[in-house]
Formats: sequence, C-alpha cells, structure tokens
Amino acid sequence: MKEAYIVYEDDEVIAFLDKYPLFKGHTLVVPKEHYENIFEAPDEVLCKLIKIAKKIAKAQIKTLNADGVRILQNNGRAAKQIIFHVHFHVIPFYYGLEIKYPRLEINKDDAVEVVNLLREALENG
Amino acid sequence: MKEAYIVYEDDEVIAFLDKYPLFKGHTLVVPKEHYENIFEAPDEVLCKLIKIAKKIAKAQIKTLNADGVRILQNNGRAAKQIIFHVHFHVIPFYYGLEIKYPRLEINKDDAVEVVNLLREALENG
Repeated sequence: MKEAYIVYEDDEVIAFLDKYPLFKGHTLVVPKEHYENIFEAPDEVLCKLIKIAKKIAKAQIKTLNADGVRILQNNGRAAKQIIFHVHFHVIPFYYGLEIKYPRLEINKDDAVEVVNLLREALENG
Repeated sequence: MKEAYIVYEDDEVIAFLDKYPLFKGHTLVVPKEHYENIFEAPDEVLCKLIKIAKKIAKAQIKTLNADGVRILQNNGRAAKQIIFHVHFHVIPFYYGLEIKYPRLEINKDDAVEVVNLLREALENG
C-alpha cells in the first residue's frame, strides 16, 4: 500500500484511487478483512461498503464535477475480477469522455490533487 | 409490470429479468419505493438491495452455472443510467461468451425457464 492514494479509511474499510483509472477519480472501496468475493463477504460488510461507495460517489459529483457515477463489483475471472479480494469500483463519468484502452497508469500530480479534493468533500460530509 | 419475469419479491424489493439481457439470467434488483439514484436512496435501502443482489448472484452461479457475476449500478445519463429509478444489475458471466450488441430482447421460453430456476434456488436458500 506504500504508493496508495487513500481517499477514505476507518477500522473496517479503506478506499483508494485505482492505479489505472477509467476516469479521473476512479476509486476502489475495499474491506480490510479478506474476503475473496461477494459470496464470501458477510452482509454487514457489503452494507458498509455500499454506504462508503455512496459517500465517495457523492464526493466525486461535488468536487470533481462528475456528471454521473457507476458502481461496479466483479466476482470471478469470467466477470473480469482481477484482484481476488472483494472490492467495489466507484467510477465517475463525464459527458463527452469515452473509456479509452489501454488504461493508463495514474499520474502522480493528478492523483494527489484528486485525493485532496475527495478527502475534503468526505470530511465535510 | 404486466410482462415482467419476477425472480424475487418482498414488501420493499422486487427483482426481475432485464428485458434486454447481456447474458442469460441478467436480473435487475429494484426498491418498490421510488428513488431516482443511489444519492436519493437511504442507506438501509441500499443495504437491502445489495443483500438481495448477492442472493441472486449466488442463485445464478448455482442454477445457471454462471462462471462469475458482475454487480452494476449506474447513476446519471453520463454513466448510462436509462431508467431513472435506482436499480442494481446482477449480471452472470460465462467463460467463452462475450457481450454482443445490439442487446436482443429476451426470448419468452428462455425467460420462463430462467425465472423458474432462479426462484427455486432462492426459495431453497
């Protein structure tokens, strides 16, 4: 986690920027306890994750001027799960921007700016 | 809702097959109360929806032999929200099957078979 850009953290959950964001502000919400996927994660953990995802989505709209937000959660290689620790993607969308492949690694300056904006919004509710 | 293929229903939530499934068994989980998006939906409603989504995902693996499941929730036109009533997609994935466009309308016979399989799995926990 040395290079992680942490957006939110509490005893059970950590949220940080995706290293290969689809769009500016793309964040992953992850439980600290290990569960491989949604099937292994207890309901109360999923509740916690979706609540934090909602807060981050709100912050993306407020401070990054996102026009919409997609919540995405993949289970199993067939569904394109790559990291086998359950997580929710919170992906801001912007009018006029299309997803581009290959996904580029996040730029450090952008990451610092985005993290600061999201943290500020989250701290101010 | 006359032609809906209902997979699950309780006092607060209804789940039915997507009329234009990405893959066989693609289901939408919807609160009966109206909320436009994740921002309007109270946390307890989101918790309920994600719990039901998990159950349906499990049923898709068990009875449809899905190899993976994607949970997807779109907010705002920019994020491809089309129906402005909050909902979670529960999309089974199968090895070797790629998403095809345009999405075709569900075949009635297939829908009846899938609904019966999913309902049975859900009723048996």
